[in-house]
Amino acid sequence: MQTLFSYLFELDSATLVGLFGGTLTTIAFFPQVTKTWQTRSVKDFSLSMLVLLTTGVFIWMIYGFMIGSLPLILTNIVTFILSVIILVFKIRYNGN
Amino acid sequence: MQTLFSYLFELDSATLVGLFGGTLTTIAFFPQVTKTWQTRSVKDFSLSMLVLLTTGVFIWMIYGFMIGSLPLILTNIVTFILSVIILVFKIRYNGN
Repeated sequence: MQTLFSYLFELDSATLVGLFGGTLTTIAFFPQVTKTWQTRSVKDFSLSMLVLLTTGVFIWMIYGFMIGSLPLILTNIVTFILSVIILVFKIRYNGN
Repeated sequence: MQTLFSYLFELDSATLVGLFGGTLTTIAFFPQVTKTWQTRSVKDFSLSMLVLLTTGVFIWMIYGFMIGSLPLILTNIVTFILSVIILVFKIRYNGN
């Protein structure tokens, strides 16, 4: 298992690509959280989708630790927090 | 760089965890596509979120190929297709 430190000091091209992809899928949640925060409208979201996504992102993070992938660890920690926020909005402001 | 074949025949515990996480974040999109297909209601989705997510998932897939991660490759191919479907619905049935 590679250590986190080896990645921090040796960013190879694959890691840079991973960080780029991870940055995109993570920042994707910011305009969504902003929109949902303002509108409090969540009926178009599937509750199942949000529960599965949030759980899955958490497990991706564990996988990231297991294979020592900095992109997976960093981006999934942030994505997890943001998807939890949308899930909480969904539960609070609408059913189904 | 590890080959895809080495993963297919030697599924270690990390790969199994990754496949589990990837399966969850991928199947998460199925209830969403089903709901959106039926309702054609997409106004609660942020267009920026969908564009960033779809692009990011595509780059995750490239990262998967670069580090030889079967979970990243398989699940992001499927997730990409499903997120494109929701993006197309968003563009077709609503602006903003």
